[in-house]
Order: sequence, then structure tokens, then C-alpha cells
Amino acid sequence: MRNIKAVVQYDGSRYFGFQAQLDPEHLPTVQEKLEDAIGGLLKEPTRVYSAGRTDRGVHALGQVVHFYTESLIPVDKLANAVNQHLPKDIYILSTTEVPLQFHSRKCALGKHYQYRVWNSDDHCVFGNQYFYHYPGQLDDALMQKACKLLEGTHNYQGFAAAGSTVKTFVRTVYYMNMRRDGQWLTFDVYGNGFLYNMVRIMVGTVLDIGLHRKSIDVIPEVLATQNRHLAGRTAPASGLYLKSVFYP
Amino acid sequence: MRNIKAVVQYDGSRYFGFQAQLDPEHLPTVQEKLEDAIGGLLKEPTRVYSAGRTDRGVHALGQVVHFYTESLIPVDKLANAVNQHLPKDIYILSTTEVPLQFHSRKCALGKHYQYRVWNSDDHCVFGNQYFYHYPGQLDDALMQKACKLLEGTHNYQGFAAAGSTVKTFVRTVYYMNMRRDGQWLTFDVYGNGFLYNMVRIMVGTVLDIGLHRKSIDVIPEVLATQNRHLAGRTAPASGLYLKSVFYP
Repeated sequence: MRNIKAVVQYDGSRYFGFQAQLDPEHLPTVQEKLEDAIGGLLKEPTRVYSAGRTDRGVHALGQVVHFYTESLIPVDKLANAVNQHLPKDIYILSTTEVPLQFHSRKCALGKHYQYRVWNSDDHCVFGNQYFYHYPGQLDDALMQKACKLLEGTHNYQGFAAAGSTVKTFVRTVYYMNMRRDGQWLTFDVYGNGFLYNMVRIMVGTVLDIGLHRKSIDVIPEVLATQNRHLAGRTAPASGLYLKSVFYP
Repeated sequence: MRNIKAVVQYDGSRYFGFQAQLDPEHLPTVQEKLEDAIGGLLKEPTRVYSAGRTDRGVHALGQVVHFYTESLIPVDKLANAVNQHLPKDIYILSTTEVPLQFHSRKCALGKHYQYRVWNSDDHCVFGNQYFYHYPGQLDDALMQKACKLLEGTHNYQGFAAAGSTVKTFVRTVYYMNMRRDGQWLTFDVYGNGFLYNMVRIMVGTVLDIGLHRKSIDVIPEVLATQNRHLAGRTAPASGLYLKSVFYP
């Protein structure tokens, strides 16, 4: 048996998240499309494991998955061959053979997410599935400061959606930054792990601060009290991109 | 009663065309969304008439519609008010009161369509609903020539999908042009009217000529013989934009 690691891009717009659902309506997921394409090519039932489930509407520039196969197909030919069987909005960038003990989620040291905002008072009918349209006059310097306050090792439960069942809410955000290019804002967030909706709530809070709708003081307050109600709104899935996953 | 003309933009990606369907699954259409939004705001059942039905997946930058209303709402406030009731991917640019005899389709002198092509050998998972991905080395000068051969007053039946029930297949294409900006091609087509799939088949034929898969001689041949099989493939709906509609 061989273990194959694959780096995958996808447009999450029309998928109900990464993870295959046990549902009667059989809503399409990225995992199911990958399993169908790989399993169909290799002619063996295939289970695909990911570094992290992305939610409905979230995109990936460098999601990492792994799967086991008995097939002897050369690994350098695999990406191209699977891509022929995938829909246009999912694409394997590379495939490499890895030791059997490699696990895309358990071995990950951290992840890099990007969040894209269109800061404009105009309306645009196109592409709203790829960014968050946020009108208003934003205080960029203040948002920069807010990003820096979100870095560090903290209990981030106040920046997580309710209902997460995790052992600990402590995570480390290595780096968080916001840069502007005209009307476009890009947030970069690097961390060793993220709670449910954590990036989206952090970005939503920073935007509220940038609009002076919230004080920057809510950040240390939420980190100290874990009070979700003090934090800002959850920014929509459309702006979120899983950029890359880091391994030793 | 008043007659209101509205200029409308929409992202056609998730709609089953402009025209409301009589179907059991009730697939969403642009017309239905407009009628719901206008009718809901004005509190009267509203029928919306368009300058032309666009097909499933076709976009509009300047579709024109009209509707009748008993409402006394100021016409300059109407666009903004209706937009509050519309989904993000449909937007009314302007509303004006017009004489009762104005009809968006019957009074139209012509239309301007744009068609967008991404000419690249790369793969992109994002935005494929907004253009036609066409790889290969294209002969731009030859495509320019082909566009010019498609201008004029002709029987365009060979450039129409089968099954059209129209009185005449004669149309006038005033102007057809292709311009390149890096990997992006934009076709502009102006005409007094278009047959079913006509722009998409003309563009598909020009691209086949640009790739030297077809000879440029097929254009006069198809115009002379109306033989659809000699023309090229129908380019997908994703690249097509109704840019504007012209009136006296």
C-alpha cells in the first residue's frame, strides 16, 4: 500500500463544504468529488482525508489531503490523470508519495488562511461568492493594530462559533496582518490551528473596529473573558481561502 | 397606469435564464426575482417584460425591462427601493418613466453583446462561470478578419441553434470585433437582432478559425448555405454578456 499526499485548489461556491455528508439530499461536497475521481481512475474505493474541513462556500488555494492506494500508477502522473476526472472548480496541484504514517491533519503544524474584502460603497452583481463586500470608511491603521492584538497564544473561545467540541480552546496565532490594494483588503492569518469560524469572527471583529462600530479594547476583553457576544459578526464564508498547510 | 423602463445587471450563473419557467421544480429565473421584488415593494402583482430572454448562465450588464404600475412612488426612488428587495446578483441601474406604448423588446433597434475568453493553457478553479476558457495558440489577425466577414445583412440560420421558430433568419450584424488584453479576449457584437445561440456560435466559429482548426472560408460558406454543421461549436453561456439595448 502507498500513501499519497495531494495539494488541492477548489472554488467552494457550489459545494456544501469539504466533508462528505450523510444526508438524504446528497448535497455535493469536495471530498466526494475527489473520492469519485481518484477511485474511478484507480478502480478501487478511495477515502480521502483532509488537513481540515472547510465550510460551505469556503475556498482553497492549497488544501492538503492524503489517501491510500494499492495502485502502481507513477505518482508524478497521478495529479494530471485525476484532474481529467474532476469538475473544473477542483484541481490537484501536485501529488507526492509520503511515508505511511503521514496524516494530512494530524501531522499539520499550522495553516495559512487568507480573507478577501471588497471595501466599496458601489454594488457589484458579479463574483460575490469570492469576497466579502464591506462598504464604509475604514480606519486601516486601527485595523492593523487590532490584527496584532489577535496574535499570540490565547484561549480563543470568544472567537469561535458555539457548539465546537474540542478538548481545548487554546490556539496560537503566529501572525495576522491586513493589507490594502485600492478597494481590496487581504487578511493573512497564520496559526497552529483554528476553532470553528475563528478566522471569520476575527476578521468580522477587526472590520467592525475599522468602522469604529466597536472599540479596539474588545479584543483583549474577549480574549480574557471568552465572551462571544462582545466580538464582532462572523464574516461570510465567501471571502475565506485556505492558502496552505505546513508540515515538519 | 404608468410604464417604467429599468436597466438591469445580473450575474446569470445561478439562474435558469431570464424567463420565468412553467416547471414543477420551480428553477430560479431573473424574471421571477424581479417580479417578486417589484411586486413585493409596490404591493401589486407585477409582470416584467424584457428586451430579450438570456439563456441559463448568460450575464447582463445592461438588460432592459419594462413593467406597468398603478403605484405613485417617485420613479427616481424606485431603483434604489427595488434593489433592497433583490438578491445581490441582480441590480437595477436606473428606472425611468416612459410612454405607455414603449415596449422593451418590440421597440429595440438593436443590441450589443460581449463575449469574454480566457486564452490560457493554465487551469483556474475560480470564476469559470464568467468566461470561456480556451487554451491554445490563437491567430489574432485571422480572427479579426473572420469577425469582419460576419458583419452585414445575411441569412444567419447556419449560425443558429436548431429549433428556432422565427419568421426570418435574416439579421444585420452592424459590427463585430475582437480585442486582446494579455490572456483575455473580448468580442463585441452589435446587431439589430440575434437568433438563438447566434453570438455563441459565431464566437465558437471564430475561435476554431483562430486555432486553424477551421478555414476562414467556412464563414461565407455557412452564410451562403445555412449549413450549421460547417460552423464551429457553440461557445458556452458563461462568457456571454448582454451589454446594452438600443432604442430610437
